[in-house]
Parts: sequence; structure tokens; C-alpha cells
Amino acid sequence: MTRSTQRRRIQRIRTDASGQLRAEARADTLVGEEPLEIRLNGQSFAVTMRTPGHDFHMAAGFLVSEGIITRQSEILRMDYRSGINAEGTRDYNVVDVRLDPAVAARAETKRREVYTSSSCGVCGTASIDGVLKVSPYEPLTDPLVVELPMVLGLPAALRSQQRLFSSTGGVHAAALFRISPQADDDGAAPGEPELLCVREDVGRHNAVDKVVGWALEHNLLPLEATVLQVSARASFELVQKAVMAGIPVMSAVSAPSALAVDVADRTGLTLVGFNRGDGANVYTGAQRIRLTTPDESEL
Amino acid sequence: MTRSTQRRRIQRIRTDASGQLRAEARADTLVGEEPLEIRLNGQSFAVTMRTPGHDFHMAAGFLVSEGIITRQSEILRMDYRSGINAEGTRDYNVVDVRLDPAVAARAETKRREVYTSSSCGVCGTASIDGVLKVSPYEPLTDPLVVELPMVLGLPAALRSQQRLFSSTGGVHAAALFRISPQADDDGAAPGEPELLCVREDVGRHNAVDKVVGWALEHNLLPLEATVLQVSARASFELVQKAVMAGIPVMSAVSAPSALAVDVADRTGLTLVGFNRGDGANVYTGAQRIRLTTPDESEL
Repeated sequence: MTRSTQRRRIQRIRTDASGQLRAEARADTLVGEEPLEIRLNGQSFAVTMRTPGHDFHMAAGFLVSEGIITRQSEILRMDYRSGINAEGTRDYNVVDVRLDPAVAARAETKRREVYTSSSCGVCGTASIDGVLKVSPYEPLTDPLVVELPMVLGLPAALRSQQRLFSSTGGVHAAALFRISPQADDDGAAPGEPELLCVREDVGRHNAVDKVVGWALEHNLLPLEATVLQVSARASFELVQKAVMAGIPVMSAVSAPSALAVDVADRTGLTLVGFNRGDGANVYTGAQRIRLTTPDESEL
Repeated sequence: MTRSTQRRRIQRIRTDASGQLRAEARADTLVGEEPLEIRLNGQSFAVTMRTPGHDFHMAAGFLVSEGIITRQSEILRMDYRSGINAEGTRDYNVVDVRLDPAVAARAETKRREVYTSSSCGVCGTASIDGVLKVSPYEPLTDPLVVELPMVLGLPAALRSQQRLFSSTGGVHAAALFRISPQADDDGAAPGEPELLCVREDVGRHNAVDKVVGWALEHNLLPLEATVLQVSARASFELVQKAVMAGIPVMSAVSAPSALAVDVADRTGLTLVGFNRGDGANVYTGAQRIRLTTPDESEL
């Protein structure tokens, strides 16, 4: 059985009203973390630590991120059939993916490049050129323009949907928002961003893979006119995953790395960081961001 | 050239005193993130995204975490000799490790198990038993007892040493503190924790590897009478790295996963989470934690 949360007995220690430390034994809810092996046509492709749940979306999104598939139809079948553990019972930690023969060859060439873990996925060569993947959708030419106040509201919108975070406090999240068209010439206000999908995981890159896998199943790739909001920093891998899915705008609560900014810049992704509700940093693609101050100043 | 920080031109947007969003173009300092390949006796062993700096310590600490070495003398040589890039210049993203022949065989059996990335390192099998490593120091029987108020002060002590975080805001950290003996029978107060080593990295598991590699070089393994303070959540991998280095107490600012707690429990590690200065959760090994309230109550 896989579980997204588990209960454990802990000692909770807090400072009481008189300033003394007090310990209380109580049950606590913890986020689940288990390995998932992704097999392609019977052969092991990658293993990642992840929070159980939405495993098929995660596997599919991971294959999009790796540049192996771009359409759901390229996956002929997914199941847990191989996951038989030492006790002879199914453990749901192995996802078998049967690929269309036309793309299986593509997977073969990628097989030896993949290294993955609970917080990112990087292929196995040590030069920066070696770790960069080329998206079928780059350069990202999506003409989307978003209003910054709307983007500044996305972290709170994501947070309000973080069910696992609320119970465990120890989990990353990613959410995909669809942006409705801009205000018409007659001045009608643009609509609210529509939350398409939100996913949580101990690994931030797993949360993004799960969102992308959901979008793949709904035939939404490339993800035009969307913003990907993530709960933490913008690592190089997250930027790369967004670009591989054709997402034009990514917003992170915390900082990007220098390599993340360089990849965003090269591919045409709009990268917003330190999104703290009352301000943010725009690292790349500022042409998609409108301040909408009274004078409608643009960047 | 490797660099721990890099400068980029960004748009910084903040709400001004009148409540309007204002954009300002300025240079910003970003944390560096580049791949590092670790080669053992000429063969590629692992690739991880890391912040350049302390690469030899990181490689050594990683080998401790993987159970390949326990002493500095098992490394005959480390250098960047293989890192020649396409332009014919050295890129400092490949560390060559020459191992003692006696341990090289051990590395060979581990080679195919290693998957790694900028935030963790997990071996390549999909069962939980498959990802668990056995530490030469487990069960951890260190009789260390620490006073909780001291532990509650460690996040601030770590934060004050985070040079990269201060300039970039986007980096994890790990610090190792040595704990002096407990109060004598005559009531002398125990000494302050001594900061042995602090390291920062885009990947939290890299920061721990760098600290452990430093300790290896200083012949401090197993790391008895120490506390490892980490800046973020306590993932399964971080707990495992602490145990592999013989560290008896680990403290995290954020939450552990269920698997992290289970591994800590099984190995005898004292695991403190949600260390927020005025309180914390003790998940395992509470016998090492003393509240030191006036009545000297113990957990």
C-alpha cells in the first residue's frame, strides 16, 4: 500500500505562557516518501523518491520532461503489474509504461542519461550543455501577457490548495493556472486565473511532473496561456520541465539559480521569483508582465 | 571557471509607499548551479547539480554517504584532471577520485545503484529496503545528551553563517556543531556548541556531503557528540547521510518525511524537526534531549 501521509508518535515541545519549555507526546501526521521505479517496455528507466499518489501522471510528466513523449497516445499502457515485492504482494512502487514502438527507440537513447531523485532530475553528463534538454516548443513564443497583481496572488492561491502541507508542513507543491484573454478594447476586465491542477510531493520536481502528466492526459500540451506556480525556489530542473511542457510563465516563491535564469532566458520563458504577494523579481521575459499601475506602465 | 554566485540583470518590482507597483532594473546576485561528475578510478560514478565550491569535500562526503569509504586514507588522490571541455579548457565540473584498490571493488558493486541530483542521492532500486544503506556506525549508541534550549539556538547560529543565502536568498545549508560535555556534578554549566563546519549549496544533500567530507579530512568520523543542523526539511536522504557519518543528533528547520522518521528510529538517530527557536518536534531518540526547565524534567 502506498500512502501520501502517515501517522507517527512524537514529542511536541513548545514554550508555554510562563516561558517554560513543555513536552507533549502526541500523534503527528507526516508526509509519505517512497521510491518509485519507472520502467519503459520492461526495462528500468529511473527511480525517484516521491510522495505516493498520482503515480501515472508523474511517470507521464517525467517522460515529457525527458523529451521522450509529447502526446498521451504515445503511451500504450501504464500499470503497476511488475511491482511484486519479496513477500509476493504488489507494492505499487513500480510503474510499468508500455510505449508506442515509434518512441521506444527514443527512450533507449535517453536511458543512460537519466539520473533522478526526490528533488530533481538531471541527466548523466557533467557539462552544462550535457544536462540541457531541447523542448519541442522552444523558443517559447506565446504572446501571453499577464498582469503582475494577478501573478502576485498565485502563491496564496496555491497555498490554499495545499492539503498535504496543511496536515504535514513538509511538502512542495506546483499549480497550473490558465490565464483568460486580456481586457478587450472596450475595457472589460480580464478574468481570474483558472486553477487547472495542483499537486504536492516531497520532491518539488515530482509535483511539476504530476501537473504536466495531468495536462498531457487532457491533451493540453503545449501549455499555452498558462502560469506554473511553484512553492519553493526555481531550480534549473523546474525551469527545464516548464519549457519542455510549453509553459510560457513560471513563478516561484523563492530564488532561482543562475543556471535557471540562463535556461529561461535562452528558451523564452518568463521567470518570476521571490513572489511574495506585494512584490516579485522578474528575471527573464519581462515583455509578458504588465504592472497595471494607474498609468498602465509596462516593464 | 566555477563560481558560487553570478550576477544577472533583473526587474525588481515592489509596492511603493503609495501602494503602487514599481519596477526597477538592477543587477542581482544569484546562486551558481552547475553539474559535477564524480569519477572513481576513471569511470563515471555519479552526476549531481551543485553549487561550485568545496568540490573535493563534496565528493568525499558523497562516498561516505554511499558506504564506499570511511577514512580519508582510502582516497589516494583527487583532482580535476579529466574535466576538459569541448573548447579544450578545464571546466572544473569533473572530479577524479583515485581509490585505494581495496575499496575500489566496493565502489564497483555500488556503481549501478547510484542515482543523484541537486537535492538528494538515492540508489537505483524501487523497494524501500533497496534504498536503505547500512551505516558502519549503526545502531548509533552515542550517549550524548543535549539541552533543548541549545538545540533551539542552532538554526539562528546556522543562519548567521549563511553567506550565500544572505546574498542570493536561494540556497540550502548544513552546519555541524560539536557539543561539549554536560554540566559537572559541581554544577558547572555546559559549554556552548562549537561550530565545526558550515556549507551552502543549491542542493540540501550536497551541503551535508560537503560537511561530512570536511569531517572525513579532519579524521572526525564517526562524528560523535555532534549535532547536524540543516536549513530545510529532513528528507530520508539527509537522515541517511547523517547516520552514515555517525552523527547522533540531527535538527531540521522544517518537517521530516515518514520514511525519514522510520530510518532515524531504526538506526538510533535523534531527529528534531520544526526547530523554530521557541519550540520543536522530537521525532525519535528523545533520550538524548533534556528540556532543562527549572524542574530539570526529561522527556
